[in-house]
Amino acid sequence: MKRSTGASRRRSGPGVWAIIGLAVLATGLGWAAGCGSAPEIVSKVASGDTDAVIAARGLTPDDVYAAVKTFVPTGQKDDYVMFSSGGHSGQVFVIGVPSMRLLKVIGVYTPEPWQGWGYSDETRAVLAGGNVRGKEINWADTHHPALSETGGEYDGEWLFINDKAQARVAVIDLRDFETKQILNNPITTSDHGGTFVTPDTEWVIEGGQYAAPLGTAYASIDKYAEEYRGMVTFWKFDRQAGRIDPDRSFAMELPPYWQDLCDAGKLVSDGWVFCNSFNTEMATGGIEEDNPPFEAGASQRDMDYLHVIDLKKAEELVAAGETVTVEGMKMLPLDVSAANGVLHFVPEPKSPHGVDLTPNGEYLVISGKLDPHVTVFSFEKIRQAIADGAFSGTDDYGVNIVDFDAALEKQIELGLGPLHTQFDDKGYAYTSLFLDTAVARWSLGGKSAGSHGDPDWTLIEKIPVHYNVGHIVAAEGDTVSPDGGYLVALNKWSIDRFLTVGPLHPQNFQLIDIAGTGESMKLLYDMPIGVGEPHYVQMIKADKLKAWEIYPEIGWNPLTQSKDEHAVMIGEEKVERRGNTVEVWMTAVRSHFTPERVNVRKGDNVIWHITNIESAKDATHGFALPGYNYNLSLEPGESTTIEFEADLGGVFTYYCSEFCSALHLEMVGYFLVAP
Amino acid sequence: MKRSTGASRRRSGPGVWAIIGLAVLATGLGWAAGCGSAPEIVSKVASGDTDAVIAARGLTPDDVYAAVKTFVPTGQKDDYVMFSSGGHSGQVFVIGVPSMRLLKVIGVYTPEPWQGWGYSDETRAVLAGGNVRGKEINWADTHHPALSETGGEYDGEWLFINDKAQARVAVIDLRDFETKQILNNPITTSDHGGTFVTPDTEWVIEGGQYAAPLGTAYASIDKYAEEYRGMVTFWKFDRQAGRIDPDRSFAMELPPYWQDLCDAGKLVSDGWVFCNSFNTEMATGGIEEDNPPFEAGASQRDMDYLHVIDLKKAEELVAAGETVTVEGMKMLPLDVSAANGVLHFVPEPKSPHGVDLTPNGEYLVISGKLDPHVTVFSFEKIRQAIADGAFSGTDDYGVNIVDFDAALEKQIELGLGPLHTQFDDKGYAYTSLFLDTAVARWSLGGKSAGSHGDPDWTLIEKIPVHYNVGHIVAAEGDTVSPDGGYLVALNKWSIDRFLTVGPLHPQNFQLIDIAGTGESMKLLYDMPIGVGEPHYVQMIKADKLKAWEIYPEIGWNPLTQSKDEHAVMIGEEKVERRGNTVEVWMTAVRSHFTPERVNVRKGDNVIWHITNIESAKDATHGFALPGYNYNLSLEPGESTTIEFEADLGGVFTYYCSEFCSALHLEMVGYFLVAP
Repeated sequence: MKRSTGASRRRSGPGVWAIIGLAVLATGLGWAAGCGSAPEIVSKVASGDTDAVIAARGLTPDDVYAAVKTFVPTGQKDDYVMFSSGGHSGQVFVIGVPSMRLLKVIGVYTPEPWQGWGYSDETRAVLAGGNVRGKEINWADTHHPALSETGGEYDGEWLFINDKAQARVAVIDLRDFETKQILNNPITTSDHGGTFVTPDTEWVIEGGQYAAPLGTAYASIDKYAEEYRGMVTFWKFDRQAGRIDPDRSFAMELPPYWQDLCDAGKLVSDGWVFCNSFNTEMATGGIEEDNPPFEAGASQRDMDYLHVIDLKKAEELVAAGETVTVEGMKMLPLDVSAANGVLHFVPEPKSPHGVDLTPNGEYLVISGKLDPHVTVFSFEKIRQAIADGAFSGTDDYGVNIVDFDAALEKQIELGLGPLHTQFDDKGYAYTSLFLDTAVARWSLGGKSAGSHGDPDWTLIEKIPVHYNVGHIVAAEGDTVSPDGGYLVALNKWSIDRFLTVGPLHPQNFQLIDIAGTGESMKLLYDMPIGVGEPHYVQMIKADKLKAWEIYPEIGWNPLTQSKDEHAVMIGEEKVERRGNTVEVWMTAVRSHFTPERVNVRKGDNVIWHITNIESAKDATHGFALPGYNYNLSLEPGESTTIEFEADLGGVFTYYCSEFCSALHLEMVGYFLVAP
Repeated sequence: MKRSTGASRRRSGPGVWAIIGLAVLATGLGWAAGCGSAPEIVSKVASGDTDAVIAARGLTPDDVYAAVKTFVPTGQKDDYVMFSSGGHSGQVFVIGVPSMRLLKVIGVYTPEPWQGWGYSDETRAVLAGGNVRGKEINWADTHHPALSETGGEYDGEWLFINDKAQARVAVIDLRDFETKQILNNPITTSDHGGTFVTPDTEWVIEGGQYAAPLGTAYASIDKYAEEYRGMVTFWKFDRQAGRIDPDRSFAMELPPYWQDLCDAGKLVSDGWVFCNSFNTEMATGGIEEDNPPFEAGASQRDMDYLHVIDLKKAEELVAAGETVTVEGMKMLPLDVSAANGVLHFVPEPKSPHGVDLTPNGEYLVISGKLDPHVTVFSFEKIRQAIADGAFSGTDDYGVNIVDFDAALEKQIELGLGPLHTQFDDKGYAYTSLFLDTAVARWSLGGKSAGSHGDPDWTLIEKIPVHYNVGHIVAAEGDTVSPDGGYLVALNKWSIDRFLTVGPLHPQNFQLIDIAGTGESMKLLYDMPIGVGEPHYVQMIKADKLKAWEIYPEIGWNPLTQSKDEHAVMIGEEKVERRGNTVEVWMTAVRSHFTPERVNVRKGDNVIWHITNIESAKDATHGFALPGYNYNLSLEPGESTTIEFEADLGGVFTYYCSEFCSALHLEMVGYFLVAP
């Protein structure tokens, strides 16, 4: 065989063959060429015939209004950011408002290889924190994200989110939008009323859902009233450490009602916590044995119990050692809470799905989903009733029940299936109506009366949504000073709103303009959600977020948020063998790994340190190791270490899995595992 | 303890307490209430002051044009659907055009619990098809999606996608948008030039990437030229079965160049396949030993080799038994292909990233990314040169090299870093320019000359994009009759285009209006991609897709696309014990599972059949089994079976993880695992 010269001939073609040295493609220059220089011929970008487009596409004046209200031109930024639970995707979605664009999916409970989440040893260790009795569980049902607060305002620093399926909570650092901690609640199997935070984020609240024997115990369903229990857990957040401290956290034993959503008190009600419940009937199902199914059995009584918790008093009892320990978790026994006035009940219309405090902390809005009203309690009246001992009795577990009339401020009829309430800056409240498939605007009154000019405590307007709305979110709607302007309806079904993409349809987030007063709500935008099933969302002003564009220092470890002791700098690259251990120190930079060859023997223990030594924004490198189930996402400055047994013999090419430069495909090396 | 009457008191509140029976919440009626009835007070949805919004938001006339061009009003549908690779997310993204909304993420190589992908036994079995030498690999680096074609037109039936990291291919059924098959190529470790299909989808093409010893063999890097090999594989697609048939598939051994993208011939070139390559230098890296790094070593020669494959002739040789078998895979040896004229090379400007056939199949556009030109070869000239034996020599492996001048039609200078070319309906071609960070519009000539009035083979216009564009996609741009109208630039970096969401930034898909002629391209929309790193996309006319809205029959098994033998109908629900095996037959319907209690003993083998007996669109039920890592997504009609050992004792609540009705939270049952 003879190598021909044909293939190495230089062709000039019709023009002059440009001399493009490798230099222009290398670090720094490649970036500059990519982002700084303008092409010779630039499109004129004429304005085009806008009216002709409107006519051709059949847009109505309302459509045009919605289009210009939501369109964010290239290079400009959204005003708000929504953090949305991903439901049973196990993740968190980051969405810009008003454009309703998905900016990022944050890997939380489910491995996600694009961001390397669960495909490096360090991220696997975070996921392993959520193991259930030592068993790896690699999905979750995330429900309620909670932004950290300072003085009742979102501060943009941390995000918490629960897993309903396995009673877990996670901590996300909003400097790098990465999950730092996952904890499994050892005393129960499901949660729903979490996460919520107290106004200065001392506590992350996790309310339970389905009652079960505490810890890992087994009890027959016939022993439901005696052996099954509900719970609420207060996780102590250490802002300095950026972690929840389980040793300073505690749970409260609750009756085996099914606790639902919670909300923390604020301002006048600071120090108190409120949780809904349903199935105070203590139905245990069994449709197959001619029992009422849960849907009927848990809906027999007209009232369930709002749980009113004096958190400060609970803290005192915990400090005084009044807890028992269940599976390593401190827990306030139910009788202690009941006897010491930590826990009271207020009757609430049955099967509620939301308890929401008005921004001033004075009123609690309850949506009993089988009652067409929202019920508004006064915190001041509840506190007074407790002080006065105005109880209508106790429940089966000895908890005092506050008289309904003593607590009630108002009931307002809104429509069918009220679920969840948000607030704006003008004194309006907004409540989702699942069965009406609408959002109601209504006016607050009393100490929350607004400046909008509408009468107090009155339904003002309903706007249809598409379809079956669950939660809603308004801009900064959970804070002590909501912004108004935008509201998003989190609709569970989309049915006919989008192209059919198979029998599993996306959900539909609908953006609603709530800037006006009176009857003025406008539907602006339909956003399909085809990557999970969100339950609740919080919406923060974008300028409160101070995320890092690159890591602060070359060699950064995102888990410790400090420089890694094994960071590899230029010139420190090497491969060392010690017995059966091969240790690799590697750097990554456009467009090569150093070293490019790693030779080991099958069965060797391999320790591999990798540092992305880039400091340019967006210059992420991947590190894919085929056959070994590793895929790292190394953002500029990031360093990590993986350790594994070379159990698969043969030749593998590790490569950069993030398209980083013109010579990205050449950013590769050979991992040779000799027999 | 005494139960108080307070909690069961009925409150009428300020209005009349509505009697809402359970009936209105149940199956059917719940749906009707959710979707059919209008609220009493409907928002007037005034048009608002559009001009005031434009002024307040500072929108330019171009911005308004882009807004009305891309906005899709509620209830209306997008015109096109893009199927995008998810890069190292391992998934496929489904995106509507022109709204640029993410309609769905399809789980392919990576488990995704919202859709139950990898969280049921049947989907785990599909994923296990992609095991690498028996090892579970739960991520992938998807690169090139290919829609099935009939007569060179997308037919909307199937989608194929590769995994670069592990040399795998997957088959997705576009009736339900679910992955049906994953296959691991046993002869190599990485691919890149796939998937592409022949004009009637007889073959799914998977081109290799980094050369390695064939099969699972080990060879020292010093034996590169002798022992390492490239490959291209032709997977036989059985449209009737909806599966690739490995037994009728075959690979071709290729020299250890790094094969890159491929394209199938069509019309005049039907029956031929073309693949780029780079690193014909056979560089082996080793920067740590003062060798040139791959980025330099693989860029030393001015020309690499376009691989020209006569697929019909290859099929004949395979039928004649001229193959060898490597790890169970039929393979045409390199010397057989070379000697029989199956494989020829054409010199191509170095390190190309794209070979793209014009819609008529006549011209091949090559982008050598280190050359400012695109190089256009004529298929007719190549065929003639082969017939004439107009070779300039052979390579080291005996493959004939077609004379460059004999194959060349034209070279057109476009700019820095050309990568990939698409076509429209007017005779324009569009080429991405990575280093210019722009898209070039240029005119075809010869047999592809268009009606646009611009001169042939000429650069017409460049439009800047943001930033570092990789591939581009035009509407139906890979077919024999592209639609024009829209083009999307798949930009690798977004840098300053979106809010900062941590050091890992989204990519940026930019929609460009290409409807006009001459210098008229307009940037319309920036779509952040924060859920993966797409490489290539295909865009199909939406009305070609005929996806199911629900499954065709109650009891459907999506894996077999037929009724499941274990489908459970109403009245057939039961729990049976046989020795240590407990078998459950369960139905799911709004708002209950039947049965609601399943009692087993620790260590029992549990077989659980579940059928969603709904036939209403969007009435999906989840089935979450906490602690056991199951989360099923049961779309209307779907049936599945899981089988597991009850290895975790205690009490667990299985529940519907998809918010299905007002009484969704009550759709739950107890799984009791006695000691």
